[in-house]
Amino acid sequence: MIEIHTAKEIQTITNTYQKEGKSIGFVPTMGFLHEGHMSLVKKARKDNDIVVMSIFVNPLQFGPGEDYEAYPRDIERDRKLAEEGGVDVLFTPAPEEMYKAESTVIASVKKRTDVLCGRSRQGHFDGVATVLTKLFNLASPTRVYFGMKDAQQVAVVDGLIDDFFMDIELVPVDTVREEDGIAKSSRNVYLTQSERKEATALYKALRHGARRVSEGERNPEVVKKEIRGILEKTSGVIDYAEIYSYPELKSLKTLSGKFIIAVAVKFSKARLIDNIIIEIPDDQKEDE
Amino acid sequence: MIEIHTAKEIQTITNTYQKEGKSIGFVPTMGFLHEGHMSLVKKARKDNDIVVMSIFVNPLQFGPGEDYEAYPRDIERDRKLAEEGGVDVLFTPAPEEMYKAESTVIASVKKRTDVLCGRSRQGHFDGVATVLTKLFNLASPTRVYFGMKDAQQVAVVDGLIDDFFMDIELVPVDTVREEDGIAKSSRNVYLTQSERKEATALYKALRHGARRVSEGERNPEVVKKEIRGILEKTSGVIDYAEIYSYPELKSLKTLSGKFIIAVAVKFSKARLIDNIIIEIPDDQKEDE
Repeated sequence: MIEIHTAKEIQTITNTYQKEGKSIGFVPTMGFLHEGHMSLVKKARKDNDIVVMSIFVNPLQFGPGEDYEAYPRDIERDRKLAEEGGVDVLFTPAPEEMYKAESTVIASVKKRTDVLCGRSRQGHFDGVATVLTKLFNLASPTRVYFGMKDAQQVAVVDGLIDDFFMDIELVPVDTVREEDGIAKSSRNVYLTQSERKEATALYKALRHGARRVSEGERNPEVVKKEIRGILEKTSGVIDYAEIYSYPELKSLKTLSGKFIIAVAVKFSKARLIDNIIIEIPDDQKEDE
Repeated sequence: MIEIHTAKEIQTITNTYQKEGKSIGFVPTMGFLHEGHMSLVKKARKDNDIVVMSIFVNPLQFGPGEDYEAYPRDIERDRKLAEEGGVDVLFTPAPEEMYKAESTVIASVKKRTDVLCGRSRQGHFDGVATVLTKLFNLASPTRVYFGMKDAQQVAVVDGLIDDFFMDIELVPVDTVREEDGIAKSSRNVYLTQSERKEATALYKALRHGARRVSEGERNPEVVKKEIRGILEKTSGVIDYAEIYSYPELKSLKTLSGKFIIAVAVKFSKARLIDNIIIEIPDDQKEDE
């Protein structure tokens, strides 16, 4: 594995791979790697000649009062995990390498952001889309890998690639979970022991919702209410428990097609998110 | 010359050129080609293996009440000129090919836009940056060619390429002028005969400004006042007559370094722009 810090160097290397006709799988991360990230690397390793990973805690996607400074970092451990996972090129730029003192242009996300995490994180997805536009242009990926844990991010990246005609295949990868169902996350370390136990409620609530849909429930309000009921039993504060079409993230009066059930709960020092994507086949829809 | 209408086809073709190691010179235009455009093609032809030109009147860069519908179009003539100029691939997409019914992401220009044309054309440069991001991703250019007549556009494209780490060389090309000095423009056809004569005042005013600087004048206010004096003799309305650092487009208290003198005048049916870039060498600056 080689490690690179500058934009110029990574662009030179990925250009060379491109000229050699090698496919590049790219896994952008903010580091503090866990099994969720490693499942992306595993998939990228399987699909491509070259695997590039970036580790960059992107200041632009943190709002005022969010946890940019406190975001967990452990580059030594990350480096080891990346190498073990089969990463060929690790890109670890400094913030001043990615952002000039004065930026002229940003990527601005106009849809799919006024709901779920986007609603409470003003400008968050502009930051995500901007850094990804930069990183994609540097890594020249054939395929990019994102975890479905942040399904709204995947929806935004889908729009970014599609709207900007980026010649990149988006590969969404299923959320990796602990044995008790809780989604792997860098932020889980902030949970107290009792919160850690309570946090299993997120996935329990989602599975309950999925079960109600499979039983034939088509009223999103009914499903949301029952999900909230489960989440309210924790000590956390519900940020949202919503159902939207996916990836468009629009409201639904009746459940049909492809949609997401998504929840976010604030515990004392960590806000956890989780979701489940459900697709009701067209023929089943017609039965309604 | 081949002509292509869809995003998918152009991306396939330019991908093939890239794999063959061919350099691509790209000339994005809104059509109604004149010698200004052809000078870009000539330069692109000289520098690259392949020349790609796009003709697309981009709705997103026209504001409400601007001349999108009335913008002059003559695709038959353009096709002939492009072929004669040595264009290999002509890309002529329909608006619905470039913009989905619902765009998720746009490129938003945060600097270099609150002055000159950007001030009176709200959102204009977001439209320019967005369509160019799309076109650049489709045409995969080695080099892109822009006329310095729209120097603010060149400044924005410079920021776009730089901030997004696009692996593209920006080649600014000098403004092509009629014998009497007026800059070639698709909009010149809207001038009445008497306005056409008066319109020479724009370049005369710019040359006067350049002469005053070369004589040692370093106060931008003095130069601007004299330029306005020349423009005020026309029947047109001065939109602006300004001096800024280039390409940053920031105000200057004293003339130094690289800067632009730029003017815009509204005639009855056409708003004309012109500019001149001046660089005062560092040693000369120290003499002041």
